[in-house]
Amino acid sequence: MSKPYKGFEPKWVRGEYPLNSWRSIFKWGSPFEIKAPKESLYKILKKTFELDDQFFNEYKEDPGFDEVKLDIPCKLPDEDIGEFKKILGDEFVKTDDYSRLSVAYGKTMYDIMRLRRKRVDNVPDAVLYPDTKEQVEQIVAYCAKKKIPVYVYGGGSSVTRGVECIKGGVSLDMRLRFNKVINFNETDQIITVQAGMSGPKLEEVLNNAVKLFSAKRAYTSGHFPQSYEYSSVGGWVVTRGAGQNSTYYGVISDIVAGQEYATPIGVIKTDQYTRKATGPDIGGIMMGSEGTFGVLTHIALRFFRHTPKTIKRFSYMFASWEIGQQAAREIMQSEAGYPSVFRLSDPEETGLMMRMYNIDESPLRHLFKMKGFKDNEMCLYLGFTNGEKGFSKNCAKNVRRICKKFGGMSLTGIVTKAWEKGRFNDPYLRDTMHDFGIITDTMECSVNWSNMSQVHRDVRAYCKSRPKTICMTHMSHVYPQGANLYWIFIVHMTDPEEFRKFHAGILDAIQKSGASMSHHHGIGKMFAPWLEGSLGKNQYDILRALKKHFDPDNIMNPGGTLGFDLAEEEKRFLGCVV
Amino acid sequence: MSKPYKGFEPKWVRGEYPLNSWRSIFKWGSPFEIKAPKESLYKILKKTFELDDQFFNEYKEDPGFDEVKLDIPCKLPDEDIGEFKKILGDEFVKTDDYSRLSVAYGKTMYDIMRLRRKRVDNVPDAVLYPDTKEQVEQIVAYCAKKKIPVYVYGGGSSVTRGVECIKGGVSLDMRLRFNKVINFNETDQIITVQAGMSGPKLEEVLNNAVKLFSAKRAYTSGHFPQSYEYSSVGGWVVTRGAGQNSTYYGVISDIVAGQEYATPIGVIKTDQYTRKATGPDIGGIMMGSEGTFGVLTHIALRFFRHTPKTIKRFSYMFASWEIGQQAAREIMQSEAGYPSVFRLSDPEETGLMMRMYNIDESPLRHLFKMKGFKDNEMCLYLGFTNGEKGFSKNCAKNVRRICKKFGGMSLTGIVTKAWEKGRFNDPYLRDTMHDFGIITDTMECSVNWSNMSQVHRDVRAYCKSRPKTICMTHMSHVYPQGANLYWIFIVHMTDPEEFRKFHAGILDAIQKSGASMSHHHGIGKMFAPWLEGSLGKNQYDILRALKKHFDPDNIMNPGGTLGFDLAEEEKRFLGCVV
Repeated sequence: MSKPYKGFEPKWVRGEYPLNSWRSIFKWGSPFEIKAPKESLYKILKKTFELDDQFFNEYKEDPGFDEVKLDIPCKLPDEDIGEFKKILGDEFVKTDDYSRLSVAYGKTMYDIMRLRRKRVDNVPDAVLYPDTKEQVEQIVAYCAKKKIPVYVYGGGSSVTRGVECIKGGVSLDMRLRFNKVINFNETDQIITVQAGMSGPKLEEVLNNAVKLFSAKRAYTSGHFPQSYEYSSVGGWVVTRGAGQNSTYYGVISDIVAGQEYATPIGVIKTDQYTRKATGPDIGGIMMGSEGTFGVLTHIALRFFRHTPKTIKRFSYMFASWEIGQQAAREIMQSEAGYPSVFRLSDPEETGLMMRMYNIDESPLRHLFKMKGFKDNEMCLYLGFTNGEKGFSKNCAKNVRRICKKFGGMSLTGIVTKAWEKGRFNDPYLRDTMHDFGIITDTMECSVNWSNMSQVHRDVRAYCKSRPKTICMTHMSHVYPQGANLYWIFIVHMTDPEEFRKFHAGILDAIQKSGASMSHHHGIGKMFAPWLEGSLGKNQYDILRALKKHFDPDNIMNPGGTLGFDLAEEEKRFLGCVV
Repeated sequence: MSKPYKGFEPKWVRGEYPLNSWRSIFKWGSPFEIKAPKESLYKILKKTFELDDQFFNEYKEDPGFDEVKLDIPCKLPDEDIGEFKKILGDEFVKTDDYSRLSVAYGKTMYDIMRLRRKRVDNVPDAVLYPDTKEQVEQIVAYCAKKKIPVYVYGGGSSVTRGVECIKGGVSLDMRLRFNKVINFNETDQIITVQAGMSGPKLEEVLNNAVKLFSAKRAYTSGHFPQSYEYSSVGGWVVTRGAGQNSTYYGVISDIVAGQEYATPIGVIKTDQYTRKATGPDIGGIMMGSEGTFGVLTHIALRFFRHTPKTIKRFSYMFASWEIGQQAAREIMQSEAGYPSVFRLSDPEETGLMMRMYNIDESPLRHLFKMKGFKDNEMCLYLGFTNGEKGFSKNCAKNVRRICKKFGGMSLTGIVTKAWEKGRFNDPYLRDTMHDFGIITDTMECSVNWSNMSQVHRDVRAYCKSRPKTICMTHMSHVYPQGANLYWIFIVHMTDPEEFRKFHAGILDAIQKSGASMSHHHGIGKMFAPWLEGSLGKNQYDILRALKKHFDPDNIMNPGGTLGFDLAEEEKRFLGCVV
């Protein structure tokens, strides 16, 4: 991001903002890191939204430099606060404005847009910082007795309003203390951690297993969502998340070996056998419950050998989205092992990536022409393999063979390296762009090969029905039966309500096209109105029965999560927005 | 099995038995196939049980040549029978003795021993032969209205009393008509079938996909349990079964893409996305419900390329069970791809297999001696790989490298071929041996690497505490985190009650050792008393809540399945046995 602009450069906010400011809460990620668009992207934005340099002379959104101040009293009686202090210690129960606001929202643009406007619809009454599983169990038991709503804040990167404390009550901020290794079992390749452990900390622990646990070798979690740096292991599990390397390592439901929850009806603990025939799958019932059945405390995760040296990077250009899909399907169905990162971009995303990575100005441009590849048609495929040396090599060889068969043109591993550079810090772009009213957000769903083209066409058609909308699509979690489809949209938009309608329209389009409502973002409160329609009434009634079993008084993440108390909330949703 | 004996040969029942006889019901498998012990096994039996040739001069158990006659009237009123006939047609509702008895029992030795004694504890009042999903839905709806118990008979090879009609009512015999392909989707590699389709028919359909569906190539289900020939797809799913090639293709829960059930509260139908983030896993709730929530009607299964030419067979001998386990673990954790068949035998099984396959009389014997391998210590490992050519080759290469590292001695692929020959017809031995009072049955469970030795030791110790007991163990479904342990025991025993106590003792030993109660046989009614203890009360209560939701009047496979109505049944269990 450091390359100087040749022309005019807007005054991107470069991270200088006061502690305790609104910006410190809505901004993505580390306080010390920012990312501004490179000049190529800036040019695209100006052109797409028909803006000129002058437009970028002043901020269009409040940059949020003011100190956080709320006018919302804590409604919990002293007795309850006292009880929590008894369980956790005085300093680990907070009711000040900043602590409460800092766990009130996740990272959908609807959250950010509200925070930019200092619009605080919901905050918890108190923030609790547990240290141990037993403390979480005591808190949940007390809240069940007193009917106090319980929310959980893990990494804070939810894009589904999953963490929003619609009913007040308490939010358990897991970041501070609930982030320790409980057990490391090298024989079984299973590590048990507290739910608040962050992605990078888990990876650091596993990479350093030799030093930390006298292990024989270094390991990896294999789980790297784009939100990686600000995601927690607990968040991965309760939302059924997926990492960018999931095609090889599996999504989180493939990686989890065991789970433990504190629920209103007691502790739920599963065993750690990944396959068994002992009735319905208890782990699969708890996973994806998004805090509505109980608070996830301990998680046993499978881990993998850390093999950075066996990685084989590749990237190819295909003539069209249809051909790219065919090649992708053949790679996944050919039984030669699955690549780890596997990303096929549609023509619009390919065009933008080519400009972002300066491919469009490289000699490759001429080769595309010679091949007959056309702008707005060709599709970029990139990825890399993992695993044992021979496995990784054979897998990459198979990719090469199939790409060649489908007329793909190799771009070597350089494009993949460029993508890797930005894979975790691209979200930082959101804030710098948003200062000028340009917002970017993402949506995603599961499809199978047979309905992929239709879902892509329908959802894209909805997005593009809004003039001046960048809508990029890719698949990035791929299976023999299908894949996810992932949309990144960039729009010039300043009204949170307009955003919400646009977002709802995309969800509508996903549902109507027959795809699943989410591949790995989860449902939260924002996607919840569509869940029953997506699963069907009889299937959804099973979830209702489970909710009633675990949480008869509806204190666990209440206010619409997974749609359980939606009727009331939907009214709120529709009635309370300015 | 045709090699003539050198010495005395007992008059093994070679399949000549009347149609409609008791033997035709309790006998394993095809009416036209039998298998008698080869001389080496006969010698082992004589030696182990201290019997002589004279003992084998006459049958010790009733060979069951009599025609089936029951003195148990059908208790269903004419009105109900009439309604079923209206739904299915007159000829597809049967109340005769033979039809009823033929679906009354599965294939645990407890079932066989009871049938040998003409002891009929339970039969359904009527047997129904559905043709379509809609008919099954009508039957379940009618039974729910009239509170008539509903049982399902798929392939009939349950070893858990899963199909036993403890409460009378109706049994749906799926074999006759409910066995058709509903949809074949080559693009997604998903086939949808009716639940009564048998293993061999599914495989035949997939192998012949080019001819039947104008597919581009031949496919395989990848699912071959030992009961393969007398198992149904529906049975695989409701019990969470596994095939002998599961280490590569996955167990049934990995293979299923979608399920549809007829339940008392209506149809439950899941989508066909194998990974998604839309709340708790509905498919995982239904799978393993063993008929207690509803009747499985349609199943969408993933399928795989049929690649018999890429198979690489291998077999190795290791110095000990501990070393064999270490090698097995390394193979599964080395990330070079998983072998398809993967079978490591403990010393007792190895000894018997060596004699069965005549290895003990081959020149290999001398090589073992030279290597310092000892009888009762060395362990046989065999298997083969599947998949794309390069993948399969690399996988076998990795197996070779690791086996060598752990001092394994290659026995080439010949031993594997010998095992393959018997893999599906070994169960036929049960009947010929049982005519002389020698019974063989199996038990299995899931373990992780860290508790494998202890579980093996404890369960084996229990089995061997009974004098003159052959107890062989192997692992045959293997994971990076652990494996199953599978016990085959052979005893000379004639009292069903003694068998039941012995069986219960093994289950007790499994539970006390901390393993799961089943890796792939399921729970049924016979393992059910241990399930709540194994899962723990809070976890088991989730299953209770689900049962109440789906089947408030307890008509679906009632009488103890999964332990839901065990209190009453256990009394029965303990009180009704002679």
